[in-house]
Formats: sequence, structure tokens, C-alpha cells
Amino acid sequence: MIFGIRAVIEAIDAGKEIEKVFLRREMGGELAKELMDRLSTHRIPVLRVPLEKLNRLTMKNHQGVVAFTSSIEYQNIEHIIPMLYEEGRSPFLVILDGVTDVRNFGAIARTCECAGVDAIIVPMKGGASANADAVKTSAGALHRIPVCRENSLHNTVSYLQKCGVRVIAASEKAAHSYTDADYRDPVAIVLGAEDTGVSHDILRICDDMVSIPVRGQISSLNVSVAGGIILYEALKQRL
Amino acid sequence: MIFGIRAVIEAIDAGKEIEKVFLRREMGGELAKELMDRLSTHRIPVLRVPLEKLNRLTMKNHQGVVAFTSSIEYQNIEHIIPMLYEEGRSPFLVILDGVTDVRNFGAIARTCECAGVDAIIVPMKGGASANADAVKTSAGALHRIPVCRENSLHNTVSYLQKCGVRVIAASEKAAHSYTDADYRDPVAIVLGAEDTGVSHDILRICDDMVSIPVRGQISSLNVSVAGGIILYEALKQRL
Repeated sequence: MIFGIRAVIEAIDAGKEIEKVFLRREMGGELAKELMDRLSTHRIPVLRVPLEKLNRLTMKNHQGVVAFTSSIEYQNIEHIIPMLYEEGRSPFLVILDGVTDVRNFGAIARTCECAGVDAIIVPMKGGASANADAVKTSAGALHRIPVCRENSLHNTVSYLQKCGVRVIAASEKAAHSYTDADYRDPVAIVLGAEDTGVSHDILRICDDMVSIPVRGQISSLNVSVAGGIILYEALKQRL
Repeated sequence: MIFGIRAVIEAIDAGKEIEKVFLRREMGGELAKELMDRLSTHRIPVLRVPLEKLNRLTMKNHQGVVAFTSSIEYQNIEHIIPMLYEEGRSPFLVILDGVTDVRNFGAIARTCECAGVDAIIVPMKGGASANADAVKTSAGALHRIPVCRENSLHNTVSYLQKCGVRVIAASEKAAHSYTDADYRDPVAIVLGAEDTGVSHDILRICDDMVSIPVRGQISSLNVSVAGGIILYEALKQRL
């Protein structure tokens, strides 16, 4: 945790990876503007919060700004895709659309590393933080596999499709089973939020939707388990 | 939590399901003997602990006994197997050999319910408690799927084998892949402890061992994810 306007600016300038910044709602002044410019340039997620929230985070003089440093270094998917193609590999990606539980995030990252996934794509806002708990649950996988944080998953899906990547969403609403899809070509698998699943916005533009059949009365699996089942079906086809 | 010798005896007599009992190390007397008989008859796990441990659990007058009630009602595998055969079904079972994390236990139970597993077998000692956290993580599955608590998993495996159930252990040490095994006949899949895997004692008598291939540098998957991958391969073959 870093606090104080000047301290956060310096951390950004020094190249520190920032997970997110909590800013006091009513904030102004020259230095604050300077900070805002940095946050926008480096595409760092900003959450506007009431003063009380900041006071609960730290008793020190935060000047309306508290930044959380990230446990991992984020990468850019637009650098990774061309690299994979140049190496003659068929991209194998996972998109997390609103997975908020850090333990699920960690467990999925661990599975991705084991299954040979090339990169994990998460949204700038609304996803689980890559904090120490996530890294621990991932058994260190979050330090090994590239994680890309994107401003708009909608735009990222479009970008991937332009690059020849098929985007397949896991959804209970899907008519056909995950075993019927073909994962051998470049593919990105979208896993959705614990409660509401993949967002409508993403489902609408996906190339395919697959479901995992359930026999019992509980209608859905835990997202990290569902991810494991689909990723390993994909890996089996790719081997 | 129930405390006091008489109170625990009455709870047992009233048919309350007890998860485990903490007993003061140096305990004697007529009433204590009566309690010990009950605990032994009802095969309730007993842990001998120092007085300080009990004092940390409750400030009340525990008389050297603290019992934890269970969130679920345990069943007996020797009642379930004949019932499944009578119904003309091919038993599909999961054995948890030392899974200690309640969230893993819950997630596995949820997957089992979704995959149509007939019963989960856990050891009397050394497994995760079926507590409120486990039930929550299971999305209620622990209330729907029979859980059998057995004194000796070694004896249970032998019993299952006599009943015509093939016992397949998931182990990183296995030479062949989980996709090469046949799960269509009566089958029990053994999942091991988070750190050490399936115990040597069980591996020695299993009918088969299967591994999940990993491509990355982290050598193993989370046990609930591994369970999901194998159970869904089994389900696919059984459908």
C-alpha cells in the first residue's frame, strides 16, 4: 500500500506495478491533476471512494490517495499474440469475465499453467485482484503465466477474433456440450462471474458457447472446476 | 458446539450427528466411562487434547469434553452399495484420502453432485470437517449427496473391491493418463491429500492409478480441479 499524492506519482514513475488506486471523491488541485494524468496514461484502475473508506485503510496522512501495488507484472495481449504466431504456436488463451474470488482466480491460474495456456486476460475493473492470496492459491502460477489486464473485454474479444482466435464462452445456457467443440485452432475460453456467468455483452459476440452437463440438482459447478474441465478437454484435443 | 459430559451423552442418545469430540487428556470417572462407551459404539472421532485447548474453545464449564455437531448426516457405504446394485445402477464413488481443506471438500462435493456421483467416502480421522464452510462452498451439495465416514479407508477399499467396484487412484506418480482408464463399470475414484496425495497404504491396493498430464512447471493441479477433470472424463464415458 502506498499513500500520499507525491508518493503514488513517484511509485508510478519508478515503474512500480499498481493494482488499483482509491481516490477521495472530491479531490482537486494541481498535484492531483498530475496524478490523474499518470493514472490515465498508465491505464491504472481508479476507484472513487468516500473519505471514510480511505481513513479505514490507513491512519497515516493519505491526502486522499491510497494505491495498492500488484503482486504480478501485467502484460499486453497485443504483444503476446504476434509473438505466439511468430513462434509458430496456436494461441491458447483464457479470458476471465468477472471472476471476483481471489482463490478462484488463483486456482484457475494454476490450472492454466498446468494445461499450457499462453495467457490469461482479465478486465481492468471488476475482476479479482492479483494479490498475495491469489498468488499463493495459484501455487506461484501467477508469476509464470502472462496476465493481461484489458480496458474493455469486448474490444479484446474483437481484437482476438481479427487475429484468427476463436472465442468460446462457457455458459450454462449453451445448447451444446464442451466436448463437442473444437479447440485445436487458436482459441480463447471465456469463464464468467461466480454468480452471473459470462456477461451478455461478451456472449453476444462470442464464436461459440459450450456448457458442462450436470446430472444433479445443483445447476452449476464452481468456476475453477468448470475451467479445469474445459481446459483439459481442450488440451486433450491439442496434444 | 456442545460441552459437559452429561450434555454430550444426551446429544448422542438423542441421535444428534457428532463431527468429533475433544476430550481432556487425563480424564476418568464413572460418567466419563459412560461417555467413552457411547463414543466408541457410535464410532465418533475422539481427539485427546490438553486442558488449555478446551479452555480456548469455551469459557463455560466443559468438564473436559467439547463436542462439535456435524452439519450433515453421515451414511454407511455398506448400506449404499447393495441399494445401488438392487436399483440396477453401476456405483460411481469418490474416496477422499486426507483432503483437509474445507473449501476443497466443499468444491469436490459440488462437482460430485453435478457429475452424478452416488456417494463420497471420507476417513473418520484426518479429513476436512463437514462444517458450515464446507456446506457453503458445496452450494448445498453436502446435504444432497451421501457422505460416508469410515474407520479405515484401507478396509473400505477392500470391501468395495469385493463388491466388484474398481478403485482408481489419482496420483502424479501414475504412468498412464486419466483418459486411458475405463470408468464405465462400478468405480471409485480416490483423491488424495493437498500436499502428499493418496497415501501409500491405499495406492498399494488400488486397481489402477491415473495421472493428469501437466505441461507447465508447476507439477500438480489443485485437488478439487483435478477431481473435476477426472470425474467429468468418467461421466463422459458413462453417458
